Amino acid sequence: MNVQAPASVEARTDRLVARMAEQELDCLLVTNLLNVRYLTGFTGTNGACIVTPDARLFLTDFRYVEQAAEQVRGYERLELGRDMLGDLAGRLHGRAGFEDSNVTVAQHAKLSESLSEGTELIRAGTPVESLREVKDPAEVAAMRAAAALADAAYRDMQERGLAGRTEREVAMTAVRLMEDMGADGPSFPPIVASGPAGALPHAVPRDVEIPSGVLVVVDMGARLDGYCSDCTRTFATGPVADAALEVYELVRNAQAEALAAVRAGAEAAAVDGVARAIIDAAGHGERFGHGLGHGVGLEVHEAPRVAKTATGELRAGHAVTVEPGVYVPGEFGVRIEDLVIVADGEPDVLTGFPKELVTAG
Amino acid sequence: MNVQAPASVEARTDRLVARMAEQELDCLLVTNLLNVRYLTGFTGTNGACIVTPDARLFLTDFRYVEQAAEQVRGYERLELGRDMLGDLAGRLHGRAGFEDSNVTVAQHAKLSESLSEGTELIRAGTPVESLREVKDPAEVAAMRAAAALADAAYRDMQERGLAGRTEREVAMTAVRLMEDMGADGPSFPPIVASGPAGALPHAVPRDVEIPSGVLVVVDMGARLDGYCSDCTRTFATGPVADAALEVYELVRNAQAEALAAVRAGAEAAAVDGVARAIIDAAGHGERFGHGLGHGVGLEVHEAPRVAKTATGELRAGHAVTVEPGVYVPGEFGVRIEDLVIVADGEPDVLTGFPKELVTAG
Repeated sequence: MNVQAPASVEARTDRLVARMAEQELDCLLVTNLLNVRYLTGFTGTNGACIVTPDARLFLTDFRYVEQAAEQVRGYERLELGRDMLGDLAGRLHGRAGFEDSNVTVAQHAKLSESLSEGTELIRAGTPVESLREVKDPAEVAAMRAAAALADAAYRDMQERGLAGRTEREVAMTAVRLMEDMGADGPSFPPIVASGPAGALPHAVPRDVEIPSGVLVVVDMGARLDGYCSDCTRTFATGPVADAALEVYELVRNAQAEALAAVRAGAEAAAVDGVARAIIDAAGHGERFGHGLGHGVGLEVHEAPRVAKTATGELRAGHAVTVEPGVYVPGEFGVRIEDLVIVADGEPDVLTGFPKELVTAG
Repeated sequence: MNVQAPASVEARTDRLVARMAEQELDCLLVTNLLNVRYLTGFTGTNGACIVTPDARLFLTDFRYVEQAAEQVRGYERLELGRDMLGDLAGRLHGRAGFEDSNVTVAQHAKLSESLSEGTELIRAGTPVESLREVKDPAEVAAMRAAAALADAAYRDMQERGLAGRTEREVAMTAVRLMEDMGADGPSFPPIVASGPAGALPHAVPRDVEIPSGVLVVVDMGARLDGYCSDCTRTFATGPVADAALEVYELVRNAQAEALAAVRAGAEAAAVDGVARAIIDAAGHGERFGHGLGHGVGLEVHEAPRVAKTATGELRAGHAVTVEPGVYVPGEFGVRIEDLVIVADGEPDVLTGFPKELVTAG
C-alpha cells in the first residue's frame, strides 16, 4: 500500500484542532498508529504526530522516510532520532495532551524525563477515536468495497455448499478468496461455527466436518485500504428442526426491525432495545447475551457502541453493525449482522448478501 | 488451538516467583497476553494472571471460561466481572507489581481507583519477557517445527522459480503453503524484494514482476503453536553482476563467522562485531545499517538483542537470529539469516535451507 492520502484527510486535523481547543491543549501527541494513519495517510508501523493550532508534525524513523514522503499530506515530515520518545517529548510545549489509552506507563515515564520546562503532560482521552466515529465519503467507499468482497465470499459458500467441509477449510477458503479479490486480509479471524458450536459465544473454526441438517454461523469481513467490513450470516446445511427455523425467523425479524430504527438522532440504547424487546417477547431474552452492534472503521470494533448500556445518539456517518443473535446452548446459534452507515433517513446498508435462510448443503 | 499446556509450563511461574522476590513484590499482575500464554497456556484474547508466592490466579471473561478450563494448568481459574480492571485491582495487595510496558496510563488510573488499603502499584518492568529469553525444550521443538515449515516454502520458491512472478504473489503463495502445512500463519508479513528494492530497509511486496538476472531478498517465517520462526535468504533469478556475487559471498562469510561465534557466554555485542568487522574490512560497513540479530519466540522480535550497542552475554537456550546484510542503494541488497538456539558448544541451527547462492530463475 503506497496510496497517497485523499484531500479530505487534511480536514480531519482541522476538526482535531477544534477539539483540542475545547480541552485547552496547546499541543497533542498522537501515538496510536491507526490514529496517525487517519490523520496523515501513513500506513507504516512506526510514526507519530504532534498537532498544534499552528503546526502539524509527522515523525517516523529512517526506515519509513521514503514511504512517508509518498503518503503523508498536510504535515511537516521529520525523521525521529534513536531516542524516539525523548525526541517527541522535546517537541511538546505547554499543556501537552497525550493519548492515555495508548501510551504505556513506561512510555509516559520516558516522555516525562525529556519535557522542556513549563510543559505538562495532560491525559487527553481518545480525541481522534471520537472523530473517527463519523466516516467521510472516502471511508464509506472503502468500507462499501470491503463489504462487497465479503459478500462474494458468502456467495461462494452458498455455491460450493458447506456440508462435508471442515470449519477451518471454509474459513481459510473465504479469506483467500477475499485476498485474491484485493483485500488486505480478513478484518478479523473468521468464525465458522456449525451445530452446537454456533451457540458458543466465542468459536474458533475447528478441523471437524460440517454435518448436513445443521445451522452454521459465519461471521467475517474483509479489510481493504485499511478499512474493515463485518458481516454475519447463518446458513442451513439441509432441513433443520422447526425450533431452529423459528429462532431464525425471530432473529431475522428482530434484525429488520432494529435496522429500521437506525437513523441519526436515535438513542443507541433504544435501537438495541427494539431487537431486544422482540427477542424477549419470544422468551429468548436470556439467549441474546451481547449488544446489538458496534462501530466499524479502521478497527473492526470501535466507537460507538449500540447496546443496552450505551449512552448517546447515533449520528449521520456513524458506521455500525446491527447483529442480534439467539444462542441455544448445546443445540445451535443464530446471528444475522449487517454493516450500515447511519443517515438522516434510512441507513445505507453496505452488506448485500440475502437475509432469508440460505441452504448451503 | 485447544492444546493443554505441557507440564514444563508450570515451572515458568516458579521462576517468576523467584524473580518477584528479588524485586520485593508481594504480587504481580500480568496483563500482556503473550506473557499470560507463556505462564498458563491460555491462547484466548482476554485474560490476566495474578501471581503471589502462595497463589496463582488466572482470570478471564465469560467468553473464555470453557477454553481456559481446557488449557490452563497450575492456576486457579476465576471469571472476571464486567469491570475487569477494578476486579483485578481489588485482588492485589502490598507491593503489587504491574507490567509498565504493557499497562496504559488510562488503565493504571483505573487500577489505582480500586486498590485496597495499603496496596501500592509498583512498576515491575518486564520480568516475564526476561524469563522468555531462555527457551525450554517444548519451545525449541515448536520453533524447530516452525522453521521447517518456512524451509519448505523456500524450497517451493526454488522449485517454481521467481522470475516472472510478482513479489506479492510469491509472498502470498509462501504464506498459504505454510498454512496448508499447519502453520497458524506467517510470523510477520513476508518481505519479497527484488533488484533495487532489496536495498530498501523496509520493503513491502509489490505487484510488480520479478525480472531475470537480479537478486531477491526473501525474509519470512511461520508461526506454529504460537511460536515464530524467522529466516532470510537471497536468491538470484539468473546470472547477476560480479559485484553482486562478491557482496553475496561477503555476507555469507560474515554470517558463517558470526554463527561460529555464537555460544553461551559470548558477549552479544562481540558476536555482532565479528560480522561487522568482516563487512567493514570489505569497505561495506556503512551498508550494514542494522544489528546482527534479535531474539525470537512467541514474538518474532523479542529479547535479547544482538547488536553493537547490546549489553550482556548470550545464554544457553537463547533463540536468536544471525542476519548480516549489505544494502547497495539503487542496486541490490543481500541478507542471509539463520535462527539458532544458543548452547554451550555449537549453536543448534533451526534453519535448514542452503546458504550458497540459489538460482531460482
